[in-house]
Amino acid sequence: MQIDIITVVPGLLEGPFSHSILKRAEEKGLAKVRVHNLREHATNKQKQVDDYAFGGGAGMVMMIEPVAKCIEALKSQRDYDEIIYMTPDGETFDQQMANSLSLKGNLMILCGHYKGVDERIRQKYITREISIGDFVLSGGELAAAVVADAVIRLIPRVLNDETSALTDSFQDGLLAPPIYTRPAEYQGMKVPDILLSGHNEKIANWRFDESVRRTKERRPDLLEGKDFEAGEKRK
Amino acid sequence: MQIDIITVVPGLLEGPFSHSILKRAEEKGLAKVRVHNLREHATNKQKQVDDYAFGGGAGMVMMIEPVAKCIEALKSQRDYDEIIYMTPDGETFDQQMANSLSLKGNLMILCGHYKGVDERIRQKYITREISIGDFVLSGGELAAAVVADAVIRLIPRVLNDETSALTDSFQDGLLAPPIYTRPAEYQGMKVPDILLSGHNEKIANWRFDESVRRTKERRPDLLEGKDFEAGEKRK
Repeated sequence: MQIDIITVVPGLLEGPFSHSILKRAEEKGLAKVRVHNLREHATNKQKQVDDYAFGGGAGMVMMIEPVAKCIEALKSQRDYDEIIYMTPDGETFDQQMANSLSLKGNLMILCGHYKGVDERIRQKYITREISIGDFVLSGGELAAAVVADAVIRLIPRVLNDETSALTDSFQDGLLAPPIYTRPAEYQGMKVPDILLSGHNEKIANWRFDESVRRTKERRPDLLEGKDFEAGEKRK
Repeated sequence: MQIDIITVVPGLLEGPFSHSILKRAEEKGLAKVRVHNLREHATNKQKQVDDYAFGGGAGMVMMIEPVAKCIEALKSQRDYDEIIYMTPDGETFDQQMANSLSLKGNLMILCGHYKGVDERIRQKYITREISIGDFVLSGGELAAAVVADAVIRLIPRVLNDETSALTDSFQDGLLAPPIYTRPAEYQGMKVPDILLSGHNEKIANWRFDESVRRTKERRPDLLEGKDFEAGEKRK
């Protein structure tokens, strides 16, 4: 999988893809992320990529031509399964969408910046509009990094221990249970006895019960339509 | 406002805070972000910050001592309004939370990494647990960057044109209307006539109607309990 990200602030994306899991994914040849500077596709001497909004009002608008040129240039090099636009009014990103995007070939991601891109780019090129949540960022760059990270870590063999991703929050529709490591006692705070018992089945049951309890407490909406009962796995 | 971010992968956060709006906020003396390397607070020669989970299972757990030492060191330097833990099972971040955090003094943000932090750190130090959405990332670093960005851009005078933030999606509970810039016609695709009319009141009404229409179409959930009718502002 190759993910091509188009942005007016490429520097913002320097860190996220040269460290940790995304770097390893590239070293293993499993996924590549390339960041493209929209300004290189500007059509005038001033390297202009934004302009005033028709109808007036605060905030600049990303111009059509540089974006169109950049998208066309990328499309001439490879096929894309999706051309994604990161925007607060897009479909809300979640783990299910991450799972489905992780099965795709190449993805292109256009980062909204300023007040966003000219509507005609959305009509002509964009196949999917994604928001990472109900909040506004200075630009779509961090949102694109979030999507790339969530998707790439699901590609088989990117994580060293694949079962690790399967026990994450949301994969089974439940929040993860509490976790503990050494020391067994810290300033009077003890690890639950059961985790020290060495009894694998009891530990699995305890963790499942804690997951259900935590989900009921914090995110009852995740349980709607489900019939999880604490202890269900035991039966 | 100072935001202190604690992480095991400081390199991941190099880009986001040295560019764009966050850089300007620091230059104007309005907000500062400092990234702290958890490894510098490791208590053994190997600079270990993670350990196996009690009870077994895949994935490592962030150890108590380095985190506790780092938090205590920061607390001895200044007061914090919130000590936030970024975790998928936290409260879901939204624009309202961004607004309220932007009014605070100093914030500390602990980035979950690996399978997360020992539960006892959450009990002892954390005042608020935040998730940016129902998906899992390789770590809380990008999530912390998202929160810092969303919050800092709301601090007065960070954005050059303050009315720009007020017309963003979500600030009024509606998605933003379509936006257009030059050229007025691109490959047969025209800007709506009204935006070229110069009639400010009609343009404001059109934008409001488009906001309501787009919100109804894409995010009817945002309108629940509200009684927005297209054209309402006109009356």
